[in-house]
Amino acid sequence: MNYVKENLWQIEEVGFDSRYLGKSESIMALGNGYMGSRSATEERYPNERRDTFIAGTFNRFAENEVSELPNIPDMWWMDFIINGETFSLEKGKVSNFSKRLNLKNGELTREFDWEFSTIKLHFNFRRFVSKARLHYLSSYVTIENLSDIPVEVQIRSGVDGQVTNSGSQHFVEGEKGLVNQKYIQMMPQTNQSNIDFVFTIGHQINAQNLSQRIEMGRRRIFMNYFFDLPEKGSATIEKRMSVYTSIDKDLMDRSVKSMRQVAISEMEALELFSYENLLKESEKKWQEMWEKHPIVIESENFEDQLAIHFAKYHLHVMTPAHDENMNIGAKGLSGEGYKGHTFWDTEIFMLPYFNFTHPEIAKNLVTYRYLGLDGAHKKARSNGYEGAQYPWEAANPSDGEVTPVWGAADILTGQSTKIWSGFIEQHVTSDVTFGVKQYIDVTGDKEFTEQKAYEILFDTAKFWGSRLEYNPETNYYEIKDVIGPDEYKEHVNNNAYTNYTAHWNVTYALSLAEKLKKSNPDIFDRLNKKLGLDRVLIDLAAKVDRIFLPQPTKEGIIPEDDTYLSKKIIDLTKYKEKDGVDGLFHDYNLEQVNDMQITKQADVLLLLYLFEDLFPHEMKLKNFEYYEPKTTHDSSLSLSTHAILSADLGKLTESYEFFKKARNIDMGPFMKSSDDGIHAGSLGGIWQMVVFGYGGVRMIDGKLRIEPHLPQEWSKLTYGFDYQGESITVVVTKEGFELTKANNGNNVSFISKEKIYTLENTLFIKK
Amino acid sequence: MNYVKENLWQIEEVGFDSRYLGKSESIMALGNGYMGSRSATEERYPNERRDTFIAGTFNRFAENEVSELPNIPDMWWMDFIINGETFSLEKGKVSNFSKRLNLKNGELTREFDWEFSTIKLHFNFRRFVSKARLHYLSSYVTIENLSDIPVEVQIRSGVDGQVTNSGSQHFVEGEKGLVNQKYIQMMPQTNQSNIDFVFTIGHQINAQNLSQRIEMGRRRIFMNYFFDLPEKGSATIEKRMSVYTSIDKDLMDRSVKSMRQVAISEMEALELFSYENLLKESEKKWQEMWEKHPIVIESENFEDQLAIHFAKYHLHVMTPAHDENMNIGAKGLSGEGYKGHTFWDTEIFMLPYFNFTHPEIAKNLVTYRYLGLDGAHKKARSNGYEGAQYPWEAANPSDGEVTPVWGAADILTGQSTKIWSGFIEQHVTSDVTFGVKQYIDVTGDKEFTEQKAYEILFDTAKFWGSRLEYNPETNYYEIKDVIGPDEYKEHVNNNAYTNYTAHWNVTYALSLAEKLKKSNPDIFDRLNKKLGLDRVLIDLAAKVDRIFLPQPTKEGIIPEDDTYLSKKIIDLTKYKEKDGVDGLFHDYNLEQVNDMQITKQADVLLLLYLFEDLFPHEMKLKNFEYYEPKTTHDSSLSLSTHAILSADLGKLTESYEFFKKARNIDMGPFMKSSDDGIHAGSLGGIWQMVVFGYGGVRMIDGKLRIEPHLPQEWSKLTYGFDYQGESITVVVTKEGFELTKANNGNNVSFISKEKIYTLENTLFIKK
Repeated sequence: MNYVKENLWQIEEVGFDSRYLGKSESIMALGNGYMGSRSATEERYPNERRDTFIAGTFNRFAENEVSELPNIPDMWWMDFIINGETFSLEKGKVSNFSKRLNLKNGELTREFDWEFSTIKLHFNFRRFVSKARLHYLSSYVTIENLSDIPVEVQIRSGVDGQVTNSGSQHFVEGEKGLVNQKYIQMMPQTNQSNIDFVFTIGHQINAQNLSQRIEMGRRRIFMNYFFDLPEKGSATIEKRMSVYTSIDKDLMDRSVKSMRQVAISEMEALELFSYENLLKESEKKWQEMWEKHPIVIESENFEDQLAIHFAKYHLHVMTPAHDENMNIGAKGLSGEGYKGHTFWDTEIFMLPYFNFTHPEIAKNLVTYRYLGLDGAHKKARSNGYEGAQYPWEAANPSDGEVTPVWGAADILTGQSTKIWSGFIEQHVTSDVTFGVKQYIDVTGDKEFTEQKAYEILFDTAKFWGSRLEYNPETNYYEIKDVIGPDEYKEHVNNNAYTNYTAHWNVTYALSLAEKLKKSNPDIFDRLNKKLGLDRVLIDLAAKVDRIFLPQPTKEGIIPEDDTYLSKKIIDLTKYKEKDGVDGLFHDYNLEQVNDMQITKQADVLLLLYLFEDLFPHEMKLKNFEYYEPKTTHDSSLSLSTHAILSADLGKLTESYEFFKKARNIDMGPFMKSSDDGIHAGSLGGIWQMVVFGYGGVRMIDGKLRIEPHLPQEWSKLTYGFDYQGESITVVVTKEGFELTKANNGNNVSFISKEKIYTLENTLFIKK
Repeated sequence: MNYVKENLWQIEEVGFDSRYLGKSESIMALGNGYMGSRSATEERYPNERRDTFIAGTFNRFAENEVSELPNIPDMWWMDFIINGETFSLEKGKVSNFSKRLNLKNGELTREFDWEFSTIKLHFNFRRFVSKARLHYLSSYVTIENLSDIPVEVQIRSGVDGQVTNSGSQHFVEGEKGLVNQKYIQMMPQTNQSNIDFVFTIGHQINAQNLSQRIEMGRRRIFMNYFFDLPEKGSATIEKRMSVYTSIDKDLMDRSVKSMRQVAISEMEALELFSYENLLKESEKKWQEMWEKHPIVIESENFEDQLAIHFAKYHLHVMTPAHDENMNIGAKGLSGEGYKGHTFWDTEIFMLPYFNFTHPEIAKNLVTYRYLGLDGAHKKARSNGYEGAQYPWEAANPSDGEVTPVWGAADILTGQSTKIWSGFIEQHVTSDVTFGVKQYIDVTGDKEFTEQKAYEILFDTAKFWGSRLEYNPETNYYEIKDVIGPDEYKEHVNNNAYTNYTAHWNVTYALSLAEKLKKSNPDIFDRLNKKLGLDRVLIDLAAKVDRIFLPQPTKEGIIPEDDTYLSKKIIDLTKYKEKDGVDGLFHDYNLEQVNDMQITKQADVLLLLYLFEDLFPHEMKLKNFEYYEPKTTHDSSLSLSTHAILSADLGKLTESYEFFKKARNIDMGPFMKSSDDGIHAGSLGGIWQMVVFGYGGVRMIDGKLRIEPHLPQEWSKLTYGFDYQGESITVVVTKEGFELTKANNGNNVSFISKEKIYTLENTLFIKK
């Protein structure tokens, strides 16, 4: 099925197919960073996944599970019983079906005609999660009778707490009831983290001969509305919903009693406003976002422009901008995949967008890592290390590591397989440091830098110092038994990405210490006391030059790890031609793949991209040509890196092919791959491909670089970014690029093709 | 929809209607007392309830819930993907649909033709829960291609642990995997009672071009089978399943490891046998049951005979005959209603069937109450009483009271309503005593009598002694603030049923003590030591004659309680003409009903039925005529009592009307009333109506009475029963009744119309 059309602001599903419910549920997910909701239909289908999540409300169902975002009671649910028959799109005849997500204002609509025996109705559904009121959701349904005979309608609508996270129930059933004869309320609590929730629902029905009856069941409370739909007549159902929780920072009093009152008062106050009014209010907030550095792509393929809208829409749906105790999940708030946990994906893939476009949100994201220092200490200690070792998967900042320890049983042996990432996928610590360094360099946020960033930068270096293993045979410090970004290879020694980034982390801390001692001795003293820097720095200084950095072979290839290059090579062409890697794993098992030069995702190449100044152009080219054919791109994080790196290397045709594949990860016609949620990293990757890849922006070792190069198919690219308080717009054409600085602030220095420029107001640089 | 046809051994659903899934799931439930399973379809529908329960495996999901039988992972589940389209009866065209339960052998079958675009298939499903192997389930599916073009089929079949009890998940996900490359196993554990479960599944597929792939997800493991269905070809899928738990008494070693091995060994051993073999083995066990005292009714209405088959089938499906730590739930094992808890329903409604037909099962049921003494002490103590106060709702015998304390919120006030039954519906204690006394009288089980029954009889009397409240104004001992069988009336004083049965309990204990002191002083001494009988008996003797027994008014009406007769009377005719009492509650709320002479179910009349010797015929007649018109029969326990009492009173036409309504409670065309499970008490009531009501059997004060009276519509009734080790068959015709005793045991004395008879071999008593 195709979800994109000549519309730059819309994702559309034409025709209903119950095999692919998960696709539109995920890619049309609604949200506002406080909550995110899959776009499951009002009526129910067996294979649907009716998930709605509230950011940060982690709970652990049982001792043997890890904490995850609980799927909250479902409020979108409505059953339509037409002349006694429960409506379903699998019954009768459905025509003119369309389900659409308006990316500009976040409204989801669905409409169709439904014929069943003598009945013919037109249904129109509209809904949105308010971006203006974080706790608020609205739904508006119109039913028209297209036939010449009257129809009896019953609607069951309320809140259903029988939903689970694939069977795990996170909520203890709380009180429920009808308030003021009018509003449904339900107050469950998470069973381990003890977070109180208040769900409130109000209905407004416009129909003939309306009667109603409330009904309660276990974990459920709903209204039954009965009305007539005369021949050619119509009815409307408006449903307004809110969620409050006892971790909401915008509440003064987080008692259930107070939350209930707040919710009721809000419902009552909003009765003055129509659905349209409330949508407009939300749309205005979306508009503010869209007006911030809009990206305009003039391309042969409209999908390129649509993709950037799609990416930015979802980045804002999924990012808890309201609370620095929360971060972005690997599937955002759009599915149960990865349990709402935060990975390195944030720093390497999503944070750059916020650094350059919404520094205030970026600040929250890096503050989350500062708040996570305790958890990182906990993890380091439990592994016998010092300093801050960031968790591979993170939930609440102080939780430390939350990666599940045991995965599904091996199909053949029946034994549970151990998930090693939480123990040995250690590059996440330098990834976090890298993200923090990018944040302070791009934003120039002095307060965060001095209060928080330095501490992270030293504390992570301290970890690496304790992590290094001395090899007396070689007189080098090594990092053994890790997983690098290429997760096909478990328990490798000296993964290039890990060693280089750890080395960078240590190097940077050493130079920072020197700088601080001179420029800001007070800050240094404070951190010295807190972290014991005197001792740590001596240790790091002694080790730094002996950290083993895998060196290029005589062919110029940086070994991914100690043994990679000695492994067997097979031709992956036939697997790469197909989408997905199922083919490879039909022929080989993971153990066999581990013994071959097959890479899951950019590993050495990611290093070359992120630390471009450390490696010469020629070496990058050789490594690209060596590794890419061996890479399955079996991670949504891989294609965008390849697109950018190949653009950097001047391979624009190849790059654009990667770009097209990368932007299609969720938006494209892959009907199953988004079932567990959309790919947050991939969405950050779309923005990076456009602004970093083709816009040529990069923050390298504290210096801004701008070197645009458009693919053949693009005639013009307009983008913008914030840089240390200045707002810059760039227009790239085939002829060159023009920069404009918005206000009369400071001049901005940047590098382009090794020349240093200063942007005062506007500047054109010829190609 | 009509579920009965001219077939005395079958319940059939003709035509599929997704509105009424619950009906056939419940009334066609399968089971063997160890497990019970709703007959949900293999494929899934949104409003289904896929419940399967293992008797006795109670678990409490959370502190604020009470323990309940957990819905175990679903093994019947199969998805059929035909040419890429998931099969559903709501899609395409369905014809020749029939779903049938064979009551004789417990096999469920379902078949239909399904047309979808160019596809036309015939499906045939068969399944049973083995009565020969308590842990074992079998399913057999045949798919025929009726069209001239080949079809591609994918089947997903395995075990799904994502099911819950209406949202409450009782299981911690355990290990799962494939054993010996062949058998699926899953090992979850209940989260509070820590019961281990082992689920094992094997498949045997007979199809062309078969390939397979295992798949695992959260709480799920299943096989995907891919095959071709050539034109006019067919395929079969056999699925064998077993469940073991760590409370299984038939296991020597209840470790998970051992249970896994036992299950695999059984699967392997049974490969020698076909589905038919295994069904035959189970059928043989059913046959043994059917051969025990078969009941033959020659009636104008075949439904009468069918009803007794239906009742006996379900009584055996739901009764955990294998373990005296378990008892019968109010909905058997056929639904989540009443959480699998045991009520007075057992003693008053189901136990009589087992007493007279399967005394070995009856023994388990009363032993459960003996094991429940600790729980009953706990309850008495917590309420400030002595002795044994049985719980209103019971789970594990030692748990004591498990009635939920709080019910759903009041719709108007939004406040939770307190459920009072667990506190003040106290007649359950004398009901248990009554059941135990019936058991020992009917069976003559000396060992149980001496070892267990006497203790229960004294301990409950001790409770009543402590419960009685002295009223100095009247010089009577009263029982205030109770709920009687008529649950419309909460907090009443001196409910006749409660006071009379308590008085009986005390009286009986006093006479038993006198008897024992003489005949069995050793037993008396033992119990005296254990229960402090010397003190208790003095107290009881002082009180017994001053226990307040509500006396008939001058019109001969026994007041249901102190205030009932002073309340307003309204005409219930219009509500009673309709089925169900919804009408009444549309016009009045519960508080208003409480203030009127409206009775939910037999209350005074139940007393008159159970203790017929205490009340003269004329008084019974007057009370019947007074109370019945005021009774809504808003409990499945009411109609059968009225049918029997009216038969006793010679009102046979009226009685037969009650009988017909009563036998239709589950079997009849009420499409929603069985959704939460079938009505166990009503099924016991069906047997009682036939054998007690029309067969005229009764055990009154230790004496057997037989006074048959057939309704007009019946020409002949044959039934049988066990009595103190003797097996008696009775044939009732319009002319009289003939008794036959099976073997050369003891003579049996019985009373009929106040004459004493002795049955040696055979005897005919003319009407």
